[in-house]
Amino acid sequence: MVSLKELGERELVKNIRNIIRHPPGLGPGDDSAVIPYAGGDVVACVDSLTFDRHFPNGMTYEEFGWMAAAVSISDLASMGAEPVGLLAALTMPADLDSGSLYDIMAGMDACAEAFGTFVYGGDTKFGCGSLACTAIGSMNGRKPLLRSGAKPGDAVAVTGSLGSAAAEFVAIANGLDVRFPARPLMAPVPRVREGIALSASGAVTSCIDLSDGLAEGARSVCAASRVGIDIHSAFLPEGEGVETVSSAAGISKEEMMLYWGGDYELLFTFDKKKMESLYDRDVEFSVIGIVTNDDAPYINSEGIRKVMENGRH
Amino acid sequence: MVSLKELGERELVKNIRNIIRHPPGLGPGDDSAVIPYAGGDVVACVDSLTFDRHFPNGMTYEEFGWMAAAVSISDLASMGAEPVGLLAALTMPADLDSGSLYDIMAGMDACAEAFGTFVYGGDTKFGCGSLACTAIGSMNGRKPLLRSGAKPGDAVAVTGSLGSAAAEFVAIANGLDVRFPARPLMAPVPRVREGIALSASGAVTSCIDLSDGLAEGARSVCAASRVGIDIHSAFLPEGEGVETVSSAAGISKEEMMLYWGGDYELLFTFDKKKMESLYDRDVEFSVIGIVTNDDAPYINSEGIRKVMENGRH
Repeated sequence: MVSLKELGERELVKNIRNIIRHPPGLGPGDDSAVIPYAGGDVVACVDSLTFDRHFPNGMTYEEFGWMAAAVSISDLASMGAEPVGLLAALTMPADLDSGSLYDIMAGMDACAEAFGTFVYGGDTKFGCGSLACTAIGSMNGRKPLLRSGAKPGDAVAVTGSLGSAAAEFVAIANGLDVRFPARPLMAPVPRVREGIALSASGAVTSCIDLSDGLAEGARSVCAASRVGIDIHSAFLPEGEGVETVSSAAGISKEEMMLYWGGDYELLFTFDKKKMESLYDRDVEFSVIGIVTNDDAPYINSEGIRKVMENGRH
Repeated sequence: MVSLKELGERELVKNIRNIIRHPPGLGPGDDSAVIPYAGGDVVACVDSLTFDRHFPNGMTYEEFGWMAAAVSISDLASMGAEPVGLLAALTMPADLDSGSLYDIMAGMDACAEAFGTFVYGGDTKFGCGSLACTAIGSMNGRKPLLRSGAKPGDAVAVTGSLGSAAAEFVAIANGLDVRFPARPLMAPVPRVREGIALSASGAVTSCIDLSDGLAEGARSVCAASRVGIDIHSAFLPEGEGVETVSSAAGISKEEMMLYWGGDYELLFTFDKKKMESLYDRDVEFSVIGIVTNDDAPYINSEGIRKVMENGRH
């Protein structure tokens, strides 16, 4: 007998993949699955949030619903898919106020609306408080962006900026008086438009979302693509509030930008020869490093090169 | 403040539908949603099972996994859709033996295999023990079968037989020595082939699966189609074990066939003028009644006609 906790999530997921048959198309192992389908390829993914683990202090029920949708939509975005529908499976405590449940669904619907789609259905049961959001997307003829495909020499880039979600978390946990009007931690905005543009560019060789942090995302790309990545600290685009919170709480900016999750930006690699096509597409991104023929993600900071350890938070 | 329990599941679901925007295609309210999509229509649904409520005595972990897949696949079957992929969202107790989780996934994969499809992905989190299975299907150009569409004068029919799942439940609950080799309660077999044939026939005007029992299914068709249904007790196809368990436990056969769920047969209505096309398709079914211009489902038994109340189990 080995309990799930002893085994750990990563080992567990690996073992499950060895138990179930390997599907045609693209099965488990990337941000979303790609299901071969008569009229094209359906992209689909599911993610669960639980009241216990994903409902931090300061979050509203509406934000919890938004978050559930955003997490799954982000998994579509990292493939370059356009969301076409959401499904919600709720297990909710029988003594929950019904208004709280309506707020959750209103938040989920608001996120669906922000990305041009709808909540198509779902299921509600009494339980401990979990919300599994399935997101279904369409490639509209584009090729899906995978974690595999990065080649030595490709540039490494990231959309938007890093560390704001971590900064908001630290600010709340430490009672710091720093405002985050955009609510990066509580109501992240998945990079759908950017993902579609990246896949349409033909220049991008791999992509992943940064829900688990930059170090963890880079590690996944290295493993799937069998490459190394060298990132340069000086190039990291610093998110709002990172500087202030870093000083106030005594946590390094690099720590928040590399090792904390929650940013929902896209980390991607691209063929430098096709850079023009990428710059034509009106996507805001920063080049932060290069793909190497090593086998792990490294961070270069003030002349020191070290492996980025797995996400710590 | 009104708690979810005070409000009840039906009222809750109705209210949620008023909160979220109404999607194009077919949204909440039928067995599955139909999502308009570039290359055709994607059919999708999600259902959750929880350890607390859906893991009866005598069920194995493998059967729990099979059941989760079967319940969702049945929701595709009742639309006439062919399954093209499953996703699994698990929240599992951290102290669960990992072998039990593998059994769940093996059971889910076995059910996927039985219906020609695969588990394409999922998500595993620590939680109280819930499994949300998303099933994605394709109509392959056929028209989806809805709950609405039944017309007065249509015949009412049901696939397979009724009451075996209830009989197995009662047998286990009462420690009766009755064997159910097919495990109708623990490992139901959704009517996928039948659903596809029904939708291809062009004769079927409405359809629903009987997960919640015949009375409840008939009530849903009446409400969605704005019709009545008259069912004749003598025509009900009796499942294996129903007679034996009925005598041994002192529960009427009608009770088990009408009011208990778990049979996963399809209840459908069809245009009698197109009956030939239905009989050509090698589907085993029984005609059990007729659609009326009343507004509720009735059962006729030994000369007495009475409304079928909502499912009691």
